Amino acid sequence: MKPQRFAVTPGEPAGIGPDLCLLLATQPQPHPLIAITSRDLLLERAAQLGVAVDLLDVAPGNWPDLPAPAGSLYVWDTPLQAKVVAGTLDKANAAFVLETLTRAGLGCVQGDFAGMITAPVHKGVINEAGIAFSGHTEFLAELTNTAQVVMMLATRGLRVALVTTHLPLRDVADAITAERLERVTRILHADLQQKFGIAHPRILVCGLNPHAGEGGHLGHEEIDIIEPTLERLRNEGMDLHGPLPADTLFTPKYLEHCDAVLAMYHDQGLPVLKYKGFGAAVNVTLGLPIIRTSVDHGTALDLAGSGKIDTGSLHVALETAYQMAETRI
Amino acid sequence: MKPQRFAVTPGEPAGIGPDLCLLLATQPQPHPLIAITSRDLLLERAAQLGVAVDLLDVAPGNWPDLPAPAGSLYVWDTPLQAKVVAGTLDKANAAFVLETLTRAGLGCVQGDFAGMITAPVHKGVINEAGIAFSGHTEFLAELTNTAQVVMMLATRGLRVALVTTHLPLRDVADAITAERLERVTRILHADLQQKFGIAHPRILVCGLNPHAGEGGHLGHEEIDIIEPTLERLRNEGMDLHGPLPADTLFTPKYLEHCDAVLAMYHDQGLPVLKYKGFGAAVNVTLGLPIIRTSVDHGTALDLAGSGKIDTGSLHVALETAYQMAETRI
Repeated sequence: MKPQRFAVTPGEPAGIGPDLCLLLATQPQPHPLIAITSRDLLLERAAQLGVAVDLLDVAPGNWPDLPAPAGSLYVWDTPLQAKVVAGTLDKANAAFVLETLTRAGLGCVQGDFAGMITAPVHKGVINEAGIAFSGHTEFLAELTNTAQVVMMLATRGLRVALVTTHLPLRDVADAITAERLERVTRILHADLQQKFGIAHPRILVCGLNPHAGEGGHLGHEEIDIIEPTLERLRNEGMDLHGPLPADTLFTPKYLEHCDAVLAMYHDQGLPVLKYKGFGAAVNVTLGLPIIRTSVDHGTALDLAGSGKIDTGSLHVALETAYQMAETRI
Repeated sequence: MKPQRFAVTPGEPAGIGPDLCLLLATQPQPHPLIAITSRDLLLERAAQLGVAVDLLDVAPGNWPDLPAPAGSLYVWDTPLQAKVVAGTLDKANAAFVLETLTRAGLGCVQGDFAGMITAPVHKGVINEAGIAFSGHTEFLAELTNTAQVVMMLATRGLRVALVTTHLPLRDVADAITAERLERVTRILHADLQQKFGIAHPRILVCGLNPHAGEGGHLGHEEIDIIEPTLERLRNEGMDLHGPLPADTLFTPKYLEHCDAVLAMYHDQGLPVLKYKGFGAAVNVTLGLPIIRTSVDHGTALDLAGSGKIDTGSLHVALETAYQMAETRI
């Protein structure tokens, strides 16, 4: 059996990502975990936190097969462009952040890693550095030449995938095309089967408009686009329900027997998911040729270096990546 | 002290509204409750349900001052246009439905009723009858010459008010103007003080875009419209927080010390509220000169006449109306 080795990217260096990686190292892990970041950054943050962690250098050609002992962390050293002050963004390190993601992503493609787990990046500061960047999800899609990926958040008892992700609200309606909806639904359905081991996934689909358009009185996208698309896919045997009003779908009666909810846009699906799962939700990118999970929170710049952080979401992100790697067909 | 008499409108006659009113009558109420609907409809539905209810006729000039005994219900008979079949919509009764709302609304304005509680109407069938109608809220605003009302849903521990309500999603962004946001915020703030007795309401405000626009990278309405409007109102002393990302705002850390959340649109705010409060949520119309509460569910045509309905939301709607009538300044 191939060693199940995983990459962790701490993301924005001024945020809590480095702290999360250091706290990880205090507990034993079932698989070798490799932090892809700056060694100096970790050392400095460890000193700030008062955490004793042995950093064990690894690099391509020198991968570990066994988990690091508790109290130590594998690091693939990736140099910063500028010294980091915890809590202070610096666009000089934008390229560094993307380099860590590239190393992790390509390492997964090449089979060095069974999956990657990401801590939060700060999109704004990367854009301010003049680099177009709309999120991990989109970046990894491009890196792996994937035409379409799907963002899904999961917590115990609820998975929510999105047809559109980080778009201004005014652009959402035009982005809901039959082609996109079909592609996203196919990816969600296939990955629930192939990466989560669900033979016949049951998926609830939200409408775009309030009350799912209420028969055309509150918008026509359900009638013109969503219903015919779902019908076509149902005829192929997919178990799809909807379009349903988002404010009735997220209730026990509907959620009880469903494997995932497909929401049309970010703030339609994620508030409930995060309300239900706060502190224990994971972000999974579907459709990639690799396994990628992520924490569900932001960079929390104000907490970097404070020690007052919760590793709950990171643990769920790790467990989910481990499970997916095992289940994967 | 004036008698606190309340009107109940069963809404769509083919839905579960008549059933809800009949089930109400099986329990004693603290105040006189008057169902404004067709006597014949109630008799027929009672027979279908196998419920024994004495209908006591009342009308203007002949109002009761005491609650009806358990097992009986006050009715202000309002004639149907066409015979009702439970579960089957008929646009011939659209004008009937609006007449019941008009009687209740004007009765509140004239002081006959301390408030009105509404069961669900079916917007689609009213529109099909050729009558422009976008909901109770908008209808009552027009009836009472109110320029702007605010829809708020409430459940134990959470109140969510909306800046826009029943709009197709593609029209939402343009509807978020500084004028509308200011009017809605003022109404929410004033009604929390005057109808809910909260001296210094603390209000959390959602952004419009995902991540509240993330500093302009995911939309500009936060920077151009929402932030300056909130700042202006804060300078008057209002305790307003935001704009905050909808998917982090609905978490215990933020909700703990807040009196209401102001969401920009329907499916941003209501899925969480209904998830949290399903079966026990109430819809309150703010900004009206009258007190109006409503159940939070739909007409449930498939359950009309079946007896398999839950009166939980109606009870919360009644209790909330009673409390508001007591608290009202």
